[in-house]
Amino acid sequence: MVRVGIFGATGYTGNELTKILSAHPEVEIVTLASRSQAGVEVTLPVRTGRNSLSRRSYTLQSVDAALEESMDVAFMCLSHGEGAELAARSIDSQVRVVDLSADYRMKTAEQFLSAYGMTHPSPKHIKHFTYGMPELFREKIRGARAVANPGCYPTTVALAAAPFVQSSLLQQNVPLIVDAKSGVSGAGKKPSDSNHFIAVQENFRPYSVGRMHRHVPEMEQMLSDFSTCFSNRIVFTPGVLPVARGMLSSVYLPLSSTMTQDECVSLVKDFYAQEPFVTVLTDGRMTPDLASVRNSNEALLSVHVIEQTALVLVAIDNLGKGASGQAVQNFNLMMGFEETSGLKNTSSYY
Amino acid sequence: MVRVGIFGATGYTGNELTKILSAHPEVEIVTLASRSQAGVEVTLPVRTGRNSLSRRSYTLQSVDAALEESMDVAFMCLSHGEGAELAARSIDSQVRVVDLSADYRMKTAEQFLSAYGMTHPSPKHIKHFTYGMPELFREKIRGARAVANPGCYPTTVALAAAPFVQSSLLQQNVPLIVDAKSGVSGAGKKPSDSNHFIAVQENFRPYSVGRMHRHVPEMEQMLSDFSTCFSNRIVFTPGVLPVARGMLSSVYLPLSSTMTQDECVSLVKDFYAQEPFVTVLTDGRMTPDLASVRNSNEALLSVHVIEQTALVLVAIDNLGKGASGQAVQNFNLMMGFEETSGLKNTSSYY
Amino acid sequence: MVRVGIFGATGYTGNELTKILSAHPEVEIVTLASRSQAGVEVTLPVRTGRNSLSRRSYTLQSVDAALEESMDVAFMCLSHGEGAELAARSIDSQVRVVDLSADYRMKTAEQFLSAYGMTHPSPKHIKHFTYGMPELFREKIRGARAVANPGCYPTTVALAAAPFVQSSLLQQNVPLIVDAKSGVSGAGKKPSDSNHFIAVQENFRPYSVGRMHRHVPEMEQMLSDFSTCFSNRIVFTPGVLPVARGMLSSVYLPLSSTMTQDECVSLVKDFYAQEPFVTVLTDGRMTPDLASVRNSNEALLSVHVIEQTALVLVAIDNLGKGASGQAVQNFNLMMGFEETSGLKNTSSYY
Amino acid sequence: MVRVGIFGATGYTGNELTKILSAHPEVEIVTLASRSQAGVEVTLPVRTGRNSLSRRSYTLQSVDAALEESMDVAFMCLSHGEGAELAARSIDSQVRVVDLSADYRMKTAEQFLSAYGMTHPSPKHIKHFTYGMPELFREKIRGARAVANPGCYPTTVALAAAPFVQSSLLQQNVPLIVDAKSGVSGAGKKPSDSNHFIAVQENFRPYSVGRMHRHVPEMEQMLSDFSTCFSNRIVFTPGVLPVARGMLSSVYLPLSSTMTQDECVSLVKDFYAQEPFVTVLTDGRMTPDLASVRNSNEALLSVHVIEQTALVLVAIDNLGKGASGQAVQNFNLMMGFEETSGLKNTSSYY
Repeated sequence: MVRVGIFGATGYTGNELTKILSAHPEVEIVTLASRSQAGVEVTLPVRTGRNSLSRRSYTLQSVDAALEESMDVAFMCLSHGEGAELAARSIDSQVRVVDLSADYRMKTAEQFLSAYGMTHPSPKHIKHFTYGMPELFREKIRGARAVANPGCYPTTVALAAAPFVQSSLLQQNVPLIVDAKSGVSGAGKKPSDSNHFIAVQENFRPYSVGRMHRHVPEMEQMLSDFSTCFSNRIVFTPGVLPVARGMLSSVYLPLSSTMTQDECVSLVKDFYAQEPFVTVLTDGRMTPDLASVRNSNEALLSVHVIEQTALVLVAIDNLGKGASGQAVQNFNLMMGFEETSGLKNTSSYY
Repeated sequence: MVRVGIFGATGYTGNELTKILSAHPEVEIVTLASRSQAGVEVTLPVRTGRNSLSRRSYTLQSVDAALEESMDVAFMCLSHGEGAELAARSIDSQVRVVDLSADYRMKTAEQFLSAYGMTHPSPKHIKHFTYGMPELFREKIRGARAVANPGCYPTTVALAAAPFVQSSLLQQNVPLIVDAKSGVSGAGKKPSDSNHFIAVQENFRPYSVGRMHRHVPEMEQMLSDFSTCFSNRIVFTPGVLPVARGMLSSVYLPLSSTMTQDECVSLVKDFYAQEPFVTVLTDGRMTPDLASVRNSNEALLSVHVIEQTALVLVAIDNLGKGASGQAVQNFNLMMGFEETSGLKNTSSYY
Repeated sequence: MVRVGIFGATGYTGNELTKILSAHPEVEIVTLASRSQAGVEVTLPVRTGRNSLSRRSYTLQSVDAALEESMDVAFMCLSHGEGAELAARSIDSQVRVVDLSADYRMKTAEQFLSAYGMTHPSPKHIKHFTYGMPELFREKIRGARAVANPGCYPTTVALAAAPFVQSSLLQQNVPLIVDAKSGVSGAGKKPSDSNHFIAVQENFRPYSVGRMHRHVPEMEQMLSDFSTCFSNRIVFTPGVLPVARGMLSSVYLPLSSTMTQDECVSLVKDFYAQEPFVTVLTDGRMTPDLASVRNSNEALLSVHVIEQTALVLVAIDNLGKGASGQAVQNFNLMMGFEETSGLKNTSSYY
Repeated sequence: MVRVGIFGATGYTGNELTKILSAHPEVEIVTLASRSQAGVEVTLPVRTGRNSLSRRSYTLQSVDAALEESMDVAFMCLSHGEGAELAARSIDSQVRVVDLSADYRMKTAEQFLSAYGMTHPSPKHIKHFTYGMPELFREKIRGARAVANPGCYPTTVALAAAPFVQSSLLQQNVPLIVDAKSGVSGAGKKPSDSNHFIAVQENFRPYSVGRMHRHVPEMEQMLSDFSTCFSNRIVFTPGVLPVARGMLSSVYLPLSSTMTQDECVSLVKDFYAQEPFVTVLTDGRMTPDLASVRNSNEALLSVHVIEQTALVLVAIDNLGKGASGQAVQNFNLMMGFEETSGLKNTSSYY
């Protein structure tokens, strides 16, 4: 059994990760740590034995105490900035790290400063991190010492654009347009005016419009790393849906030459033929939705060609493939486990 | 492996049952049958192997063709009246039956006629059925040839009232008051004016008020069977919440003598001490909610004493403990499996 | 034109009141005051002229500055405790007051202390206040110097019980049972764990069970004041619906003798025959719902007799008849205006 | 008083129109007609007098009987195809028509056949219709005999694109991209699998992707009519939000040359400076949302420049400015009334 610790266990991603890992056949959770709730006892609906339904109580540790525990892998589920130093100390102690925050996603401290408006807490540790998008960088992730888990929005853009980027099919000098919709859990658990029930219910609001969102540099860096021929800019419009969880992105890709609907569908379908978590709808009249992927690590795509523009619609669960599910997929790759281990029990959709 | 067939697989209870049974370690699903969609191919998010994530496609059979399949247990998920004859034919063929419809819940054809306004399709088969409320009738269910799975509302009333009924603590001649709230899935999948999104969203409406609901005779029969000293009438007010799934009942029990809060909590807690799926909150300031039991077979209770009235709040998932989860619990008892088998993978709550 | 000020204009009740009063034909709003947002400019969708659609901007005043404005009536929309002294100072300055908070609802400072756990800020001003439930105390409200506007839950209980209390039809020594459901706006605008979208959506949770809710003493006092023969206790269970606004209460009234459905319906219908804002459904199969009364000052009732229990279902908008609409109704009575003035523009239901 | 009839009064647009017109100072409703519910009595929350709150009952007429009523203007709220002949007969009888269906939006019967897949029921009457987008074609609408009320999606596209089209600022040969989200009411009242609460709640699904939506030809025709220099194609992706009403469109406009944020905002702000129902947010960090325009005839816009693309976000109520509100605005123009008449009573937002 691999011994893991979860830092920031009470937030949405930490909670989801705890649920997944508690049923993972190769994992023993040795500590759940929290910055704000150390000492609190939580009872989680985890499964400790084969057929044993009993819930398990944990006393949340402080993050400092938790760092002292003997463990093989630390999952960081804290806000950006908060866990960077903990991740660094873990790496220095030869503990592997999967970081769900944004701290180690950018390749340089300068890019981090530019995107997040704060000095990077530990620039010298950036080099230890691999960007954990399995469908694009699987081989680098295998055996990595530390993985920076992608953001939810960049995950959808990666899945939509990668087949076209790899085959150099995009028209240059025309921006990609990404119109994305996310559930409220993407904005975290801390109560605020903007996540009050009455601000969200029966409403929809775009936010951080016009390249203001921190995820744009991450998207552009990721696709440039994937293929040196990628140089497009990205116009990104996120918005908040009145749903708890789920994400759907419309990714509009300008094609450099005419392609048929069938050619585009085949391109994407072939690209993901061996992927365990990506499904491509082949009937152009079908479209993905949030319900089909809820509570799972799956991504569901459809592809449409209109006016020399390829539109790829991508649905994921922002807490699944967009965060905690993908973190476990990366963990499985790092540790040499079967990639789907612990991730097969998706999901009660309605 | 026990071979099972699911009749009415495309409705909410049939679909939920298919998900649960597809991950049950002792079960092989040999047929999914549908009255309206025979011949249609459905791809379900079931798990066929240990770590295999591949979805499985079934071609839905007609119910008549499905009856010809060789199977050990038939689950009936059809509307009341629709599956009664199928259940009868299964029993005659030595196939065990778990019936999720209301057809065999009443002890006599006369009571069925009175409650459902239709002649019972097969009165002579009623005697083969045991009422499947495990917490009240576990020993009768073990080894039963056929089980009538309780309605969702009666399940909550049984759980609230049983400890008090067993100890003869209710004041007679005063009615029990049950004010119950259900998610929309309880009313089935067929589109109608009353389940249109716009009729439900931002709304709440009581319905079938004043003993008009069919579940009232079932509640009274069940508690009378459980204890001959039960003779109270039940005032029942159901209502539809703007949620997909979940049920919460307020059950007001008139006490025959003064009891303290602690006495009532202890009574209920002790009654359910050995139950794998019932949790009693012991802090009187805490209350159950839908989210805590969503996608699970669990029931969460709190107990409050006010003015010589015991109020028991009961939360279940109407498709879990209120239908398909409970059906599998009954199946496990019938077949001699561990009672929690296949039911341990609850639940992604948010 | 009557000059009015609104204290606490940015909360839900203050905002709703501003909308109603801005279209009231007899009203000029002279100040909107806020404790937390003084100096902020707000643009409200108010109507200043006959056909003029232009929005109107107000700079929010501090409550102290607002008190200096010359006005005829002050509406207090602050939390309990916060506005009591402002109300007292207004009264001392010969300004009439409609207080939407709980500060002056109880008849004595002792009852206030008992219900709200705080010393009353200005006991000597309690005597100036009339309890503003028009259907029960209309004559006292006419010409009153100050009105304590009822709580939303007590409003529903008053409407359900009054016809039976007046005619002395309730069985004594048996409690009234009130199972009530409220939209989220009833709990105010301040962000908290319990009004986070994800805590509310797809959920339902009873709270403050077992006479713990502050509104119980208000209900009992109100009905005792209405008729000296009322002595029942009230078992009250409130719960939060996943809706923004609306309230539906099930009020179970134990009858002292047998009554038919028709007798009960007639009793209630006759009691409200002249009321402009109360509608009684006469078909026992019909039930009220939130949508029918949304954004209005109307109350919709149905009456059902079951097992010598009268069940009255009452639907109101918790911000309409449950707060700001009722405040304007009281204002109209105080000032001698037509009772429905400014309240006719209900409502876009879906 | 102008006498009007409403054909198709029980659908969402007909119901909304009845609410608006019943409070319109210049209007008397002489008939409400329904194809499916003729003879049914409906009680509507209309206001018949100045301060009179009494509801008004109408017996729904058959559409044929209603055509015989003496009226000045007929509003057609039927599905496309259903009301075309009624509209034609009304015109032949010298009754003015506002048609909320799609029947007379296209300029030729061939275009109608192409977009709607059915032969136009009355091609010779097309010439009598003016396309009722007041912000683009106000002068043509004044005094028109018949108005084809725009679709909800085209309304948002018109408002976003018109300022740029008028000034010839769009890059040709690059498509406009429109990513639009609509509330469920846009798809009508008839129950179906896709508007069942459980299909919509906690979900989001794009549909009719890839120029398959009927509104695309209407958008292109409208902008071409507005300016002969418009020749761009439109890539249009609609999707259904889990809300009852509201629409928000992201319209991405490729600019022919570099423009600053301020230049774009000024362009749009100046274009709408005199419009009573269009508000432009000038702070580029602010964005419109559904709640701000709910239950009103208002449109709220924000403008953002990114990578030589102008993004205009447009929020309307799909039943307000997107349908019935705009129909009344057109009616006011046709009849020479003040354009905002009857439209000033927006709106209870939360």
